[in-house]
Amino acid sequence: MGVDLNALIGKRLPDWIAMRRDFHQHPELGFTEFRTASIVAERLKGLGYSVRLGRDVMDPDTMYGKPRPDQLEKEMKRALSEGGVASWVDRMAGGMTGVVGELKRGPGPVVAFRFDIDALPIVEETTREHLPFVRGFASRHPGVMHACGHDGHTAIGLAVAEAAAAMGDRWRGTLKLIFQPAEEGGRGALPMVKAGVVEDADYFFAAHLGCNLPSGTIAAAVEKLLFSTKLDVTYRGRSAHAANNPQDGRNALLAGASCALALHAIARHGSEQTHVNVGRMVAGTARNAIAADCTMLVEVRGESDDSLGYMETRAQDIIEGTARQWNVAHSIERMGRTIGEPTDATSQALVTEIARTLPDVKNIVPSWNAGGSDDACYFIRRMHERGKYGAYFVVGSSLAAGHHATSFEFQEPDIAIGVQMLIGLLERLSRAG
Amino acid sequence: MGVDLNALIGKRLPDWIAMRRDFHQHPELGFTEFRTASIVAERLKGLGYSVRLGRDVMDPDTMYGKPRPDQLEKEMKRALSEGGVASWVDRMAGGMTGVVGELKRGPGPVVAFRFDIDALPIVEETTREHLPFVRGFASRHPGVMHACGHDGHTAIGLAVAEAAAAMGDRWRGTLKLIFQPAEEGGRGALPMVKAGVVEDADYFFAAHLGCNLPSGTIAAAVEKLLFSTKLDVTYRGRSAHAANNPQDGRNALLAGASCALALHAIARHGSEQTHVNVGRMVAGTARNAIAADCTMLVEVRGESDDSLGYMETRAQDIIEGTARQWNVAHSIERMGRTIGEPTDATSQALVTEIARTLPDVKNIVPSWNAGGSDDACYFIRRMHERGKYGAYFVVGSSLAAGHHATSFEFQEPDIAIGVQMLIGLLERLSRAG
Amino acid sequence: MGVDLNALIGKRLPDWIAMRRDFHQHPELGFTEFRTASIVAERLKGLGYSVRLGRDVMDPDTMYGKPRPDQLEKEMKRALSEGGVASWVDRMAGGMTGVVGELKRGPGPVVAFRFDIDALPIVEETTREHLPFVRGFASRHPGVMHACGHDGHTAIGLAVAEAAAAMGDRWRGTLKLIFQPAEEGGRGALPMVKAGVVEDADYFFAAHLGCNLPSGTIAAAVEKLLFSTKLDVTYRGRSAHAANNPQDGRNALLAGASCALALHAIARHGSEQTHVNVGRMVAGTARNAIAADCTMLVEVRGESDDSLGYMETRAQDIIEGTARQWNVAHSIERMGRTIGEPTDATSQALVTEIARTLPDVKNIVPSWNAGGSDDACYFIRRMHERGKYGAYFVVGSSLAAGHHATSFEFQEPDIAIGVQMLIGLLERLSRAG
Amino acid sequence: MGVDLNALIGKRLPDWIAMRRDFHQHPELGFTEFRTASIVAERLKGLGYSVRLGRDVMDPDTMYGKPRPDQLEKEMKRALSEGGVASWVDRMAGGMTGVVGELKRGPGPVVAFRFDIDALPIVEETTREHLPFVRGFASRHPGVMHACGHDGHTAIGLAVAEAAAAMGDRWRGTLKLIFQPAEEGGRGALPMVKAGVVEDADYFFAAHLGCNLPSGTIAAAVEKLLFSTKLDVTYRGRSAHAANNPQDGRNALLAGASCALALHAIARHGSEQTHVNVGRMVAGTARNAIAADCTMLVEVRGESDDSLGYMETRAQDIIEGTARQWNVAHSIERMGRTIGEPTDATSQALVTEIARTLPDVKNIVPSWNAGGSDDACYFIRRMHERGKYGAYFVVGSSLAAGHHATSFEFQEPDIAIGVQMLIGLLERLSRAG
Repeated sequence: MGVDLNALIGKRLPDWIAMRRDFHQHPELGFTEFRTASIVAERLKGLGYSVRLGRDVMDPDTMYGKPRPDQLEKEMKRALSEGGVASWVDRMAGGMTGVVGELKRGPGPVVAFRFDIDALPIVEETTREHLPFVRGFASRHPGVMHACGHDGHTAIGLAVAEAAAAMGDRWRGTLKLIFQPAEEGGRGALPMVKAGVVEDADYFFAAHLGCNLPSGTIAAAVEKLLFSTKLDVTYRGRSAHAANNPQDGRNALLAGASCALALHAIARHGSEQTHVNVGRMVAGTARNAIAADCTMLVEVRGESDDSLGYMETRAQDIIEGTARQWNVAHSIERMGRTIGEPTDATSQALVTEIARTLPDVKNIVPSWNAGGSDDACYFIRRMHERGKYGAYFVVGSSLAAGHHATSFEFQEPDIAIGVQMLIGLLERLSRAG
Repeated sequence: MGVDLNALIGKRLPDWIAMRRDFHQHPELGFTEFRTASIVAERLKGLGYSVRLGRDVMDPDTMYGKPRPDQLEKEMKRALSEGGVASWVDRMAGGMTGVVGELKRGPGPVVAFRFDIDALPIVEETTREHLPFVRGFASRHPGVMHACGHDGHTAIGLAVAEAAAAMGDRWRGTLKLIFQPAEEGGRGALPMVKAGVVEDADYFFAAHLGCNLPSGTIAAAVEKLLFSTKLDVTYRGRSAHAANNPQDGRNALLAGASCALALHAIARHGSEQTHVNVGRMVAGTARNAIAADCTMLVEVRGESDDSLGYMETRAQDIIEGTARQWNVAHSIERMGRTIGEPTDATSQALVTEIARTLPDVKNIVPSWNAGGSDDACYFIRRMHERGKYGAYFVVGSSLAAGHHATSFEFQEPDIAIGVQMLIGLLERLSRAG
Repeated sequence: MGVDLNALIGKRLPDWIAMRRDFHQHPELGFTEFRTASIVAERLKGLGYSVRLGRDVMDPDTMYGKPRPDQLEKEMKRALSEGGVASWVDRMAGGMTGVVGELKRGPGPVVAFRFDIDALPIVEETTREHLPFVRGFASRHPGVMHACGHDGHTAIGLAVAEAAAAMGDRWRGTLKLIFQPAEEGGRGALPMVKAGVVEDADYFFAAHLGCNLPSGTIAAAVEKLLFSTKLDVTYRGRSAHAANNPQDGRNALLAGASCALALHAIARHGSEQTHVNVGRMVAGTARNAIAADCTMLVEVRGESDDSLGYMETRAQDIIEGTARQWNVAHSIERMGRTIGEPTDATSQALVTEIARTLPDVKNIVPSWNAGGSDDACYFIRRMHERGKYGAYFVVGSSLAAGHHATSFEFQEPDIAIGVQMLIGLLERLSRAG
Repeated sequence: MGVDLNALIGKRLPDWIAMRRDFHQHPELGFTEFRTASIVAERLKGLGYSVRLGRDVMDPDTMYGKPRPDQLEKEMKRALSEGGVASWVDRMAGGMTGVVGELKRGPGPVVAFRFDIDALPIVEETTREHLPFVRGFASRHPGVMHACGHDGHTAIGLAVAEAAAAMGDRWRGTLKLIFQPAEEGGRGALPMVKAGVVEDADYFFAAHLGCNLPSGTIAAAVEKLLFSTKLDVTYRGRSAHAANNPQDGRNALLAGASCALALHAIARHGSEQTHVNVGRMVAGTARNAIAADCTMLVEVRGESDDSLGYMETRAQDIIEGTARQWNVAHSIERMGRTIGEPTDATSQALVTEIARTLPDVKNIVPSWNAGGSDDACYFIRRMHERGKYGAYFVVGSSLAAGHHATSFEFQEPDIAIGVQMLIGLLERLSRAG
């Protein structure tokens, strides 16, 4: 017999919240989560899990948008100076920061949960309304922020690890906890799928906090998880003195400006959700010189391969045509891609069943249009290809501000609901096995 | 009797070129020329000049666009680590990096020469065609480059100091060498004028290398030195997830893009040269978030207060209207201003007279449309207000690429012509006094 | 006993198609359908219907975007010269071109059908692939085209009128045929609703041909009929010689260009379909003069009052901000508005029931996202407000090119399916009454 | 002995002003000046001049931007209905509306004067401040206006014809009066030069009223008459329903908007005046359809073949690149071209000499930067090629509003100064001969 889950939560939740706040203070961008991943690995090992990481769980050939070696080195050093565990960090060379923990309890199904661990390049708000700032756990890494709740996801993952370990014979089979890097940008899941991480799994679940659903709500599936493509666009022109001989310049800044406006003006699809965003642009150097270079981070999305393809083609037209307009050279580098793969009906029913057992869940939404992308879909598609089950569901949480806002903050007690859902699924499937 | 100038040049030119290359390797942006200025001061002192600097020669209230304290501190440290002279650097707190050296030789006119010493935020070319790279003296400061020849100007200034000191009784009166920071951006001259640096001067000369005139050419005056205004523009919007709830965002990147295009599309004046440039734009952070902020470095120019005023008014319309378009907040900060002040006929005649005496000068242009701005005009206007003389002339130099280009490079031997011209003027005016 | 419907169709379809072709050849824009409406009225009267039109069926105060008096006069004259019936045309002063025909067959429900009759300002294709051109019935009115199938709708309406009249006692109650002008632009329905046209109706049906569904398909309801707002935007600047004194101009053409790009770049809503279009822009006069004026036809759409409101607010920001950018005056005139109102379940079931009885219908879609707007929703909303029933359904037709394309063309035999559906509903409701 | 010029002017000026007002009321665009040209021809003949016109004085192969045949026919009809002289109009088929009158007075030099006769596609102002409106002689042709003073030029030409005829033996040689069509757009001069109109001339003068110089001023030459190229740009995309299937469209309106903004944002040359203008844009048809086509009237200018070439190349880049951006087809048609050719010193001295003799001339400017283009330069260049003399000078006139403004109006009495100048030149050269 293991411990009672609710009692455990009652006792441990403050520590899990503290864990989450520690992650919030030390946010790390995709493929540089050295501190986070090494703390995760250390903790899993301490709880008795077998731990695999680095090259064992990631295929380097499908890692898009890897940071440059000097950035990796710098981030590794910082991780070590802030409590990262050197023995694990050493094994994450090249930004292979994924971690997989496994706990076996005799025969039974292999149940996999995915937790994403990366942060965003966003400057965190420092106002009296922003809880992390007021409580003193705002980001210590300037320009990087956990603005999508992955700090909470990581904490849920470690809490589930702890609870499952503590629960003795209340479940059977194998629990596989996947801590995935670089979900933002849609880059971390595919290398883990390619490394075979879910090849032996029978069930796969990924959950997300928030998604515009209030606390106490569970969405049993997510519809319209968008297909997306991430592009880094560069224009290279020629500098010249802006008053002396501007006619000798080739203006990469105006190319960027024209391109950004035209991209945002792409005709949206008539029957599917499509989106485009230029999230960052940097151009030029000196005030009185024609700007010689411009880089842009671009993303297009669609509901299907078709509508994404439409957006990609239009984006390429615009990027190339703009280069011609301003007589500048251009390059387009594909930095990531996500797909949409719907939750299957079996998984959706399982999530619904467990949600109904939880007193804190007041409202169950069968399917929710979350409006975004998540590369968890690569795992789910692989499950479906293998004839197995995969789900993506939402644990509602009343947000202070939307995802990716500078004042994003979820309700920390909702970590408990996440743990209850996943442990509930583990027990339920264990009985099924 | 002093030394013969040509003999001195013959002997010393290699060292002056070496000096220039040292400055080229260590370029410093406006108001952070700690290394350059301290080396200048040390050298002037060693040659017997009385040296004033910092607060004594600069009025802090008219220094626009001062760097932030942390930047100043960082640059000071770097200067010291690269050969800057601490005793002088300590006296340049707050970015007051102007230096004035004076040598008195009995009664006679006060003759002032101005040398600008700052570099540009430009990434220097690293190709086999670029001499500074090939010869190993390219910039060691990433993203900063002497791309306008001020390294040459500084070397000419120190060479003139040396030659004048060595020339014994070949001249009479007072020689005043003004080493001015922050010419780029039009920010360094006004504080020096306001500090009274030319209040006792009878003649003032500033010269520029290059300006699209080939080696062996002197332009005795420059026409249409443009009036200019430098603006830092900021847009502040609101971030939001680019697919989840883009409608909650306020897109500062698109505001910047619209603004840049509209600024460049301002109708140019029908009878005066007018220019506008957005030289740098930085917007947003993450690819999949609506960009919440954008900053732009903007410059407008005209041939007169009137046409500059026209450009300023149009720019302000556009900056404000764009903020309304995208529902973002905006700010406009004035970072610098230059005026145009023509060379007087007396000075122009003097320059012509000296140029005629030089065998290396094959061609004399009475007046040249250099098409740019130089805040030396603040000095010249002050001279004229005081009923004295002021000139801005060009020492032609066949350039590898235009001013502010990433592969800008002048002909180093033309340093000698600069020295000949200025020493020639000094001797001539000495006789006049 | 009346005639057998299928036999009637078999005999009359060629004539109905000829009628449609006649309408196709003589397309008329919204509120100028003098020829079409007068032919409809004449025909209804000939079939024994009581006919009301003009002021009796339209409220002039809610007619947005009425043509100018001289245009109305010109169009009236043309109508008369091309076969319009003068006695009816005289009663349509002011563009009140709606016609309502009623046939009473004793007690029973009042069943209303809506047919829209207006054409679009589109230049019809003249290629060998375009059937109306090949068969010689392309538009004779340059720049005006039935590119949305309303010629077919009008023909269906007259065919239904004929069939219902011919069918003797096979139905009971009152049949009300509403021929609505100016559906394009969403302007014609509201004035008819306000004039009380459906105040006595028990059932209301509007149908549309095509909508991206192939021939043989019926969609029993349409979801997401978009809310839309039509705006006429004018910029007024100042002309000036483009080289002599461009600085005196205020460029309305560039204002239009900036505005159009920015409007199309409005962030689309994350969870609802939203659209924006600038369909027409005219600016300036002479090549070498700064353009002094610009007019644009703009439309924004959303799935709800909320998301439409979002688009309207953003559009207004942009239109106003752009005026400030270019220092031009602006005006915004609201030209029309449509709402979305879903088909009720009762009506949807009725349509489904009838569709099942038709051998030509191979596929029934319960609800279809047609992606557009139709101001038939004003009728449906009024029905629902009155506790009655209202439906909007689709009669699929394999199109040569999409709606509003210059080579739009539907399958003419599908007119028969439209007639079968409506007569089927009439009979069915007659039994219900 | 002929009449005294001043007495003649005193008597005839009111009639000449009436003539000008008649032309002002009946403005005609380039190559459709049927009424104006036929009245000119009739009047010249009546005064005893030999008259050539149509094919005799114009080379059809170098007439760019000819109106379409149906337009020509329409304009011819209107001309006849408004007082045009049929016998002359008949000889101007194809828009060959140039007229040359010659009067021989024995041996002596051939002196040619050029008068341009065309109007602009500008809507004339109808306010209480606009004299032509207040006095009732505003344009009767909607959208066409004499907004550049060519009505005054034509009146001066006929007045000179009358005065020269009346002056008996006060001059010797041959007077050649060239009435040139289509100066706007730079299209009418080249065909007349190619037809040999000035092959026998010894002196050539063209004058322009206004040009930002006040009444009582003569500029003896014009500097920087700009080189210009006129382009008609067309984009052809594909229409689609703006909400239903916008992804099928190819938006030519947005292509036009992007192109116009980018063209106006071309970096202006650092040392020469350069200009660009999109004076007119028309795109799309229906509000709710993606616009399938767009046409633009574009003009680029420079001070030399070089700087014009730079502007042309950049314009072509932009036009082509924009087509790629929006995936639309494009065409560029060259509609006209002007060159700059400076007035020679001999002619300039002659103009100065005559101006000095006139009491109404208070101020003589040696050379004036008028900032525009005039294809009179084709005549002047041809004169210079033949070793003869050619001039372009300005007769100042205090304007109510700048050239091409909707409220342009010059001082009518300045017509007298124009006559005095030209007759003065004729007499002076006659003595020279």
